[in-house]
Amino acid sequence: MHLRLASDVQRSAPVAQGGCGPDYANFFRDAVSRLHGERRYRVFADIERIAGRFPTALWRRADGSTREITVWCSNDYLGMGQHPEVVGAMTETAKRCGVGAGGTRNIAGNTSPLVDLERELADLHGKEAGLVFTSGYVSNQAGISTIAKLIPNCLILSDAFNHNSMIEGVRHSGCEKRIFRHNDLAHLEELLVEAGDRPKLIVFESVYSMDGDVAPIGKICDLADRYGAMTYLDEVHAVGLYGERGAGIAERDGVMHRVDVIEGTLAKGFGCVGGYITASAAICDAVRSFAPGFIFTTALPPAVAAAARASVRYLKRSKTEREAHQRQAARTKAALEAAGLPLLHTATHIVPVMVGDAELCKAAADHLLECHGIYIQPINYPTVPRGTERLRITPSPFHDAAQIARLTAALAETWDALGIPRAGTVFVEAAE
Amino acid sequence: MHLRLASDVQRSAPVAQGGCGPDYANFFRDAVSRLHGERRYRVFADIERIAGRFPTALWRRADGSTREITVWCSNDYLGMGQHPEVVGAMTETAKRCGVGAGGTRNIAGNTSPLVDLERELADLHGKEAGLVFTSGYVSNQAGISTIAKLIPNCLILSDAFNHNSMIEGVRHSGCEKRIFRHNDLAHLEELLVEAGDRPKLIVFESVYSMDGDVAPIGKICDLADRYGAMTYLDEVHAVGLYGERGAGIAERDGVMHRVDVIEGTLAKGFGCVGGYITASAAICDAVRSFAPGFIFTTALPPAVAAAARASVRYLKRSKTEREAHQRQAARTKAALEAAGLPLLHTATHIVPVMVGDAELCKAAADHLLECHGIYIQPINYPTVPRGTERLRITPSPFHDAAQIARLTAALAETWDALGIPRAGTVFVEAAE
Repeated sequence: MHLRLASDVQRSAPVAQGGCGPDYANFFRDAVSRLHGERRYRVFADIERIAGRFPTALWRRADGSTREITVWCSNDYLGMGQHPEVVGAMTETAKRCGVGAGGTRNIAGNTSPLVDLERELADLHGKEAGLVFTSGYVSNQAGISTIAKLIPNCLILSDAFNHNSMIEGVRHSGCEKRIFRHNDLAHLEELLVEAGDRPKLIVFESVYSMDGDVAPIGKICDLADRYGAMTYLDEVHAVGLYGERGAGIAERDGVMHRVDVIEGTLAKGFGCVGGYITASAAICDAVRSFAPGFIFTTALPPAVAAAARASVRYLKRSKTEREAHQRQAARTKAALEAAGLPLLHTATHIVPVMVGDAELCKAAADHLLECHGIYIQPINYPTVPRGTERLRITPSPFHDAAQIARLTAALAETWDALGIPRAGTVFVEAAE
Repeated sequence: MHLRLASDVQRSAPVAQGGCGPDYANFFRDAVSRLHGERRYRVFADIERIAGRFPTALWRRADGSTREITVWCSNDYLGMGQHPEVVGAMTETAKRCGVGAGGTRNIAGNTSPLVDLERELADLHGKEAGLVFTSGYVSNQAGISTIAKLIPNCLILSDAFNHNSMIEGVRHSGCEKRIFRHNDLAHLEELLVEAGDRPKLIVFESVYSMDGDVAPIGKICDLADRYGAMTYLDEVHAVGLYGERGAGIAERDGVMHRVDVIEGTLAKGFGCVGGYITASAAICDAVRSFAPGFIFTTALPPAVAAAARASVRYLKRSKTEREAHQRQAARTKAALEAAGLPLLHTATHIVPVMVGDAELCKAAADHLLECHGIYIQPINYPTVPRGTERLRITPSPFHDAAQIARLTAALAETWDALGIPRAGTVFVEAAE
């Protein structure tokens, strides 16, 4: 958000003029004050990415001055956003087709690069069809709500740690829901038994982004088969990163064909923007035809679709990035653990270092940026539960040994300087 | 959506296996069958835009062959998606910064081009702040719901013809709502009086996209002042197109400073993708801090933000496109009227030609594409009420006299060939 100086601005008519009507401005100031009071007001760092030098970026300060920093919290997990084939596809397509799609999918916006991208995604996940949305958020919100609405008397069974976009999709559907304890198969089975014969939709993720743990996908599919439920799997933090061709954890575990709907993003492992579902032709056609969040919105630009397709195609054939990603994540974990930092052990590429206090977490992030040129955004409530505030570190194939060493030293210094407890390494059971 | 051949596909586990559980696939097939039965199943034309030759595009048929066509239904109203400064900003920024933003606004995705774009939009609308969303749809859905939720006991007064994204925003807020008859000041006043002292939010559009009529913004602001209500205005079909600097109808009418929140899109007049609100710093900061649809989604790519900013900047200083747009729209209307086609008269650039039947409307569009190489998507229910099905024509500065003549002849031939009634020109009162 940009704030302009009051003197530059032609002011809105005061809402409480002449004593008539409520003081609306005050409602908004109050709401933001509450966030300040709870120490969870978010300040966005102004960053300029530098293609070819990832994870190095420019940090633009409030006074306009800039400084080179190292980004350690990007969800462009493999740095594909700067890959020459991906950038090349975007620039070539923009020159050929222009920038915007020019309309909704139905009205002039159904461009060939987008149709080709959907074919590519269907192939990636071994499904009949793919359907692209403007974001992963919208794909969950519109996908889950539309699918559940089209199933008469549907009961949704939703993992307790599901992402906000999935929660919104569940809520939007208007269907009855039950929350099962995170990755808890016994609890899920209990709820499936209770539900009886009615139609049931199980919605869950493969990699949970904040704790970095993994769902027992195969075992959830076993339960779905046994009790006659449909399955909807969010692979947002896994696509591009896991499996022989980068289709995610379900591919790695050999259970991709057992999941009814696989949802993914083009914005993280694939380095672009947008989201999608893949499923049977009937499901994709129904969502395409009934989801307002799909129907009434401008399609993704052809240049973005082309870039995303280039990224998906590249990662289908190249394992180099996935291997380097896992290697550098393991090295980062080992270095931080050796330095006695309170690591949350995970089975994935996500490296949470626990702080447990919102104010300290923000202070640690500010200290790292200002004193060490290291950018790791603090993760506070509501993204994670209170008391589990953390720095969430995402090593990429491009974070080299020297950068890992500098990160480790900077974190150790920050922990000491701010007196953050090194309560010992925290172990969380992997789900499978 | 892309459909693959069944033989290529590793099938999902059958959902009705062994007689256990409902036949889920059937629910989705049934839903789509209902659309076929009502003659409102949508088929997307596969189009490849050609930068520099707008409104000419390539139509890719199902057999893979292509044909040059003229697009007459694009919402890239001014052809800015192919403007050299806009394409140049996208390609230059993609080369410099890569493709994706790499994260949410809070976590590594707050790139400098996006911050600069928000400054540009705040300046465009004379507001303290701007806030960019991944789409216009999301900006309404997240903006309206968040603003209304933050106002205690808020009553929403919503125009009957508001876009689906606004309806979703109203619904999402959970607030009580009253619908006022479209552009009906007397009815709005009646509801304001009934509401008494409680906080009230009036949500409405400037240009209504399907009928092309215009709201009496100033008079709505008079009522808002008199009864102490806040105002939220969607200028999606007006930004770039109206006003001295392209800020929309409120700017043209000299009432921009009286509206509390102005929402717009980067995908239509500006030719890119994304949406935004502009308002006081307090409102934008509150929405930024509380809207899940803003917080939990990856930011727009820097290259898209840079392209959008280039478009906004260009249209602030150049009136050539706006003037040519109005001129070519007027010429198109005159030509179609002279040919006796059933035009819905509008005060704007939108040219609806009425058909009044879903099947005929689809047949007319197919005939135009196949026999004349003219692409105008049929507009059927639920986008417009049943019985008001239409071809919605959007002339641009690039549709020249020869193209207007060809369009007119093609429409006349189509009306005759399919026996569509020429019930006479339809007049709809402009609102102001």
